[in-house]
Amino acid sequence: MQAARLHEYTHEMSEALRIEEIDRPSATGNEVVVEVEGAGWCQTDNHVIEGMWEQYVPQELPMTLGHENAGTVVETGDAVSVVEEGERVICHPVMTCGTCRPCRLGEDMYCENVAFPGLTHDGGFAEYLLTNERAVIPLPGEVDPATIAPHADAGITAYHAAKKASKELNPGDVAVVIGVGGLGHIGVQCLDALTAADIVALDLKESARDLASDLGARYTLNPAEADVESEIDAISNGAGAQQIIDFVGRDETTALGPKIASPGGDHHVVGYGGHVHEPAQAFVNGEFAYRGTLVGKYTELQELVALVDRGDVDLHTSQYGLDDVNSVAEKLEHGEIDGRAVIVP
Amino acid sequence: MQAARLHEYTHEMSEALRIEEIDRPSATGNEVVVEVEGAGWCQTDNHVIEGMWEQYVPQELPMTLGHENAGTVVETGDAVSVVEEGERVICHPVMTCGTCRPCRLGEDMYCENVAFPGLTHDGGFAEYLLTNERAVIPLPGEVDPATIAPHADAGITAYHAAKKASKELNPGDVAVVIGVGGLGHIGVQCLDALTAADIVALDLKESARDLASDLGARYTLNPAEADVESEIDAISNGAGAQQIIDFVGRDETTALGPKIASPGGDHHVVGYGGHVHEPAQAFVNGEFAYRGTLVGKYTELQELVALVDRGDVDLHTSQYGLDDVNSVAEKLEHGEIDGRAVIVP
Amino acid sequence: MQAARLHEYTHEMSEALRIEEIDRPSATGNEVVVEVEGAGWCQTDNHVIEGMWEQYVPQELPMTLGHENAGTVVETGDAVSVVEEGERVICHPVMTCGTCRPCRLGEDMYCENVAFPGLTHDGGFAEYLLTNERAVIPLPGEVDPATIAPHADAGITAYHAAKKASKELNPGDVAVVIGVGGLGHIGVQCLDALTAADIVALDLKESARDLASDLGARYTLNPAEADVESEIDAISNGAGAQQIIDFVGRDETTALGPKIASPGGDHHVVGYGGHVHEPAQAFVNGEFAYRGTLVGKYTELQELVALVDRGDVDLHTSQYGLDDVNSVAEKLEHGEIDGRAVIVP
Amino acid sequence: MQAARLHEYTHEMSEALRIEEIDRPSATGNEVVVEVEGAGWCQTDNHVIEGMWEQYVPQELPMTLGHENAGTVVETGDAVSVVEEGERVICHPVMTCGTCRPCRLGEDMYCENVAFPGLTHDGGFAEYLLTNERAVIPLPGEVDPATIAPHADAGITAYHAAKKASKELNPGDVAVVIGVGGLGHIGVQCLDALTAADIVALDLKESARDLASDLGARYTLNPAEADVESEIDAISNGAGAQQIIDFVGRDETTALGPKIASPGGDHHVVGYGGHVHEPAQAFVNGEFAYRGTLVGKYTELQELVALVDRGDVDLHTSQYGLDDVNSVAEKLEHGEIDGRAVIVP
Repeated sequence: MQAARLHEYTHEMSEALRIEEIDRPSATGNEVVVEVEGAGWCQTDNHVIEGMWEQYVPQELPMTLGHENAGTVVETGDAVSVVEEGERVICHPVMTCGTCRPCRLGEDMYCENVAFPGLTHDGGFAEYLLTNERAVIPLPGEVDPATIAPHADAGITAYHAAKKASKELNPGDVAVVIGVGGLGHIGVQCLDALTAADIVALDLKESARDLASDLGARYTLNPAEADVESEIDAISNGAGAQQIIDFVGRDETTALGPKIASPGGDHHVVGYGGHVHEPAQAFVNGEFAYRGTLVGKYTELQELVALVDRGDVDLHTSQYGLDDVNSVAEKLEHGEIDGRAVIVP
Repeated sequence: MQAARLHEYTHEMSEALRIEEIDRPSATGNEVVVEVEGAGWCQTDNHVIEGMWEQYVPQELPMTLGHENAGTVVETGDAVSVVEEGERVICHPVMTCGTCRPCRLGEDMYCENVAFPGLTHDGGFAEYLLTNERAVIPLPGEVDPATIAPHADAGITAYHAAKKASKELNPGDVAVVIGVGGLGHIGVQCLDALTAADIVALDLKESARDLASDLGARYTLNPAEADVESEIDAISNGAGAQQIIDFVGRDETTALGPKIASPGGDHHVVGYGGHVHEPAQAFVNGEFAYRGTLVGKYTELQELVALVDRGDVDLHTSQYGLDDVNSVAEKLEHGEIDGRAVIVP
Repeated sequence: MQAARLHEYTHEMSEALRIEEIDRPSATGNEVVVEVEGAGWCQTDNHVIEGMWEQYVPQELPMTLGHENAGTVVETGDAVSVVEEGERVICHPVMTCGTCRPCRLGEDMYCENVAFPGLTHDGGFAEYLLTNERAVIPLPGEVDPATIAPHADAGITAYHAAKKASKELNPGDVAVVIGVGGLGHIGVQCLDALTAADIVALDLKESARDLASDLGARYTLNPAEADVESEIDAISNGAGAQQIIDFVGRDETTALGPKIASPGGDHHVVGYGGHVHEPAQAFVNGEFAYRGTLVGKYTELQELVALVDRGDVDLHTSQYGLDDVNSVAEKLEHGEIDGRAVIVP
Repeated sequence: MQAARLHEYTHEMSEALRIEEIDRPSATGNEVVVEVEGAGWCQTDNHVIEGMWEQYVPQELPMTLGHENAGTVVETGDAVSVVEEGERVICHPVMTCGTCRPCRLGEDMYCENVAFPGLTHDGGFAEYLLTNERAVIPLPGEVDPATIAPHADAGITAYHAAKKASKELNPGDVAVVIGVGGLGHIGVQCLDALTAADIVALDLKESARDLASDLGARYTLNPAEADVESEIDAISNGAGAQQIIDFVGRDETTALGPKIASPGGDHHVVGYGGHVHEPAQAFVNGEFAYRGTLVGKYTELQELVALVDRGDVDLHTSQYGLDDVNSVAEKLEHGEIDGRAVIVP
C-alpha cells in the first residue's frame, strides 16, 4: 500500500515526507485494520518532522505520520467485539492496553503501555491503518469519515480543553480563546455548547476572527492592534478572564495569562512551540495556573461525536491527496490553511 | 503604642524595621481591635521589606508589618456580632468586604475590596491590631494565642495548598513536599491528616528531614545528594508524584515538577522568589500544571483550627520580643530558623 | 401601605389572603426597602397557605406572603454600599447574616440566622418590601422588574437544580425534566444553556410540551399516554437518564426515578407535596440517589441574571393586581396558569 | 471440586446451601482460575438465599455463592498479561467487558456486560473460582489471602462509601456511621484514613461500639438508649452531620437521615433490606439526599489494598470450613458474628 513516511527530522517542509510502497498491516487479537478515508494534518505533524517529540516519546524512523484518522473497518482480530468489518469509524489517536491503572481510571492518554500511531508507530497517511478496538468509535448515521477525521485529534484536543475549562465557567464569566485555527475554531464551538460564558477570541487574521464570531464568540480581538489586557478588563467589568485556552503556545501568548486572568483563573496550554517564563510570584498572586492538556479521553471522543451528531460542532476542512502532504506541511507552516487540512489517501 | 515599621525598601535585614510609638487604633462599624499576643514572622515579610510586593499590591510607607496575628479582642464596632471583648481570637490575614462576588463565593483572597494588614495596611508587629469581624475566629479551649499565631498565615497557606492537593490524592499515591520549614512542616501534617498518600519530604537540612519523618512523611530526600527523579520513580513504582507542593519556589525547585510529576500531576507554587522557565511542551506532555496558591479562605482557617483542636497539627515555634524583629529577619534570610518565629509584642 | 396577608392556614384558596393596610417598613444598618414592582406567585405560596411549612420554619400569623420580588430601591440603611436609592433590583429570597460558616462558604440557603420574607417574615405581596443588601442584585440595562420578578425564586430554584444536574451531564446524555410549569419551563432553558445533553420533557398538558420543545427539549412525553420507562430506554440507547429534575414532586413522579435512571443517576426533588416510598435496595442497585434542592445561592441568581441578559432564558408570565391574589391561588391549584403569575401591587 | 451451592430460595438459613462436587473451571482468553484461599460471607449472601436479588439481576439455580474471594492464580487464558500462575490475588467481585462506555469511564459496577460471580454466576464458596484479568489485583508482600478476602466486597464497599463521603467532609465536620459490623468497622477506618472529620459510630452492641472507638470513632452512641438527634446536635454544635453512612439500611436507620443531617448533608444507603418513606419536603428542606452505593471500582480496590499495606485498615475476621456455610448464614442472621466470617475451602 502507499504511505507518506518520515525518514529524517528536518525543518524543510517541502521535502518532509516520502511517498512509498509498504506492506498492508493485518489484525490479530483485539487489533483492527481501517481503510483510511480521511487523515487530518496537524501542527504536531510539523513538530514531529522537526524532531520536537524525539525526546518525549520513543520514535523509530522511517515512520508513517498521521494521527487523525477515520475510515472503514476492513479486518478485525478474533477478540474484537466492538466493531465489525464494513463499519465506519473514527479512531482515537492512541492504542491503549486497558489494564494498567490509568486505563482503569479512564485516562487513556496516561496509559503505561500506550502506542500512538503517527507519533510512535505507523500512522494514517496511508491507505490502511493498524489500530485496536479500544481506539475505534462507530460513526452515527451518514457521517462522512473524510469530513470528521480531524476530530480524531484536533477535535478531541479542543473538546478536552474546553471541557476542563467549562467546569470552572459560570454564566457571565469570560473565556478567552487564543488562536482560531484548526483547533481553536472547534474550541470556540465546544465552549459555546458546554457553557454560557462570554467567549473572547483572539487571532491575528481577520478571517479567523470572523469565523469565531460566526461560531459563537461574543467578542473578538486582534492582539496586534488591541490592548488585550485593558479590553478583557472592560469586557469582564474588571473581573478578568476566568479561563484562557491557548491553542498557540508561543512565548507571547503564554505571557498573556498572568495579565488577563481573574483570581483563580487558568491558562490552558494546548499549542506548544514556545515557552513559559514567569516569576513564581506571578502564580502566587492571584492563584494563577498554567495547565497543560494533551489530546483527550476515548469517552470524550464519544461525547464529541455526539456534539457533531447534534449539529453543535462544524469542522472547516479542505481535502488533499496523499501526494500533497509536503505542500500541506508548508502551507500550515506559513499560516495559509484555514480550518483543517485532510489527507484523503 | 509600640510598632515595628518599614520606612523604605531594603535588602539589609539588620536595619529593616524601626520600632516607634504610634496611635492605638479604635474600632467602628464591623471593625475589631485585637491586643496582639503573637505575630508570626513570615518569609513574605522579608519579601515585603525587599519591595517585591510593591508592584502587586498598593503599599504606602511607613507601614507596620506582621500578618500572622492572634490575641484578645479589646474593642468592637457597634455592628460586630461574631466576637466580644475579652475573647481570644486568631486573625485571618485579610479584611474583606463580604458583598463582592468573590466574597459571596467564599473566596476571601479574591475580595475586590480587600485590605491586608501587614501588606497593604498596618499589621500586627505592634501592641494592637485593627481588623474586622470577617477576619476573626474565636479560639477553642485553652489555646495560647502566641502559640497558634503562625497558623494565621503560614498555617492556612500550608493547609490551603494541602487541601487542594488532597482532592487529587488517593491512597498509595505519592505527594512530594519541597521544603520543610515554617510552612512545609505544617503542610506535611495537613497532608497526613487529609489523605492516605505516601508523603516524600525534600529538604537540604537533616533536622528538617527528621522533623518531616516525625510529622508523617514516609520518605525524606536530600536534594543535594539524592537523584530526586530516580528516587521518586522508585518510590512510586514508576508512576511519578501525583501532587507536588513547593514551599520554596526557587528556580531549582520549580524545575523539579516536570521531571517527577505523574501524568496529570500538579506542582503547587506556594513559595516564591524564583522563576518558572519551561517549554510549553513540558506542560502538554503529561498534562502537567503549575498552580499558584495564596493564603486560604476564612473557612479553611476554621478547619485548620479544628485540626489543631483535634491534635492533628503541631506548630514548631520560637518566641521573640518586638525589639528582635530585625534579628529574626536576618536569621530567616540565612535559613537559621527551624519552624516558625513568633513576635510577642 | 396595602398588603396581602395570611391570617390562618386554610385549604380554601378563594379566601386565603386578606388585603389590608399596614405600616410601610423603613431601613437601618444594612437593610434596604424596595418598592415592589413585581412579585411572582409560587406553588409554595399555596403550600404556606395550607400550613405545610409550619413544622419546618418559624411562622407567625398574620404574615404578608410573596417571596419572588423585584422593584426599585427607595431607602437604604447607613451601612449599605451595594445599591443606592433609585436602582432597580431583583431580590434573592432570603436575608442572610453573612458571618456564619454556611454564609462564609457561599451557602446562602443554609444561613444559621436566615430570614425568609414571605415564609418567615412579611414578603412582597405589598407595596413595599423590607430586605437587606445581601439579598439585592442590581438589574442590567432596561430589564423590567415585573417581568423578571419570578426569577427571584422560580428562576433561581430551576437554575440551581439545572446547575447541579449539569455537573453530571455530558454531551449525548439524557436529562429528564418532569413538569414544564412555572419552574420547569425555566429549567429546560437552563439545561439547554449549561449542557449539551438531550432533554426529555414530561408533562400532561400539550401546551406545556409544546413550550418545552420551543425552549430546547429534544423530546417530549405525555406520561398519561406514553410508557415512559421504555421511551427513555429507547431514547438513551438503553443507558437510561443520567439526570432527572422533578419539578412536581408527587408520589407518581418520584416513583419514576428508579425506573428510568442510568446507573449512578440522580433524581433531583424540587417540587414537593408527595412522598418517596422505595426499598433501600432500589438505591443500592444502580447507585441511585434522590437529592433535594432548595432555592439557590445569591451568586447563582447573579448567574441567572447574566443568562437573562444574554437572552438564554425567557420567562412566560401573566400579570395580576394585588386584589387578584386569591384568584391566582385558585387558578394555580387547578393547573390553569401557564408559566408564572406575577402580582403587580 | 467441592462447592457450596444454592438450589432454591429459602428463608431457612440452616439448610440454605448444599455442598457438592462440580467440575473445576478452566480459563480461555482473558480468563483466570483462582484457587480460593478465602471467601468472605456477606449479608448479601443471606439476601441472595432469600431471593431478594432475583428481580434485580439474572440468576439461574443451582449457583455457587461467594463474592469476596482471594487466593492463588492457577491458570490463565492466553490473552492474560496482568498476572501469572502462582501469583496471590484479591478478586474484584465483578468481571467486566472493558469496552462499554461505563468501563471506559472506570465505572466497573455499571458495566453493560457485567458478570458477578456469586450473584449471577458461580462464585467462590468452592475450591476454585473462574474470573478474568480485569478482576484480579496482585497482593503486595506477605499478605495472607484468607485474611484479606473480605476486602473484595465488604472492604471495597465500605471504602467506596467512605470515599464518596470524604469528598464532602472537612476537618471538624461530623460523619455518622450506622452499624459497626462487617462493613461498618472497615468504614470507620477508611473515614479515619481519608478525612479529619469527627466520626460518630452507632451500634446496638457494646462490643461493636468499643471496636469503633478503637478504630477511630471519636464518639459512639447506642441508638436504643441515646436520643441520637439531640446527641448529634450537641456533638456538632448545632450544625448536624455532614455525612451519614448507613451500613444497616433498615426502616429505622434510613429514617434517621432527615433528622440528623446538616443542610446539604447526604445519607449513603449501603445496607438494605428496609425502606425509605419520606415526604418530598424532607428532601427539599435542607437539601437532603439519599445516595445509594454499590460495591466500588477496581481502582478503589487497588487503593484499599494500599491502605491495608500502609497498616491503615485492619480486618476483624473469623475463619470457617466450607462445611460450615449454613451455620455461618444462621449466625449472621442472628447478629452473632463480630467483624467478618471467612470461608476457607
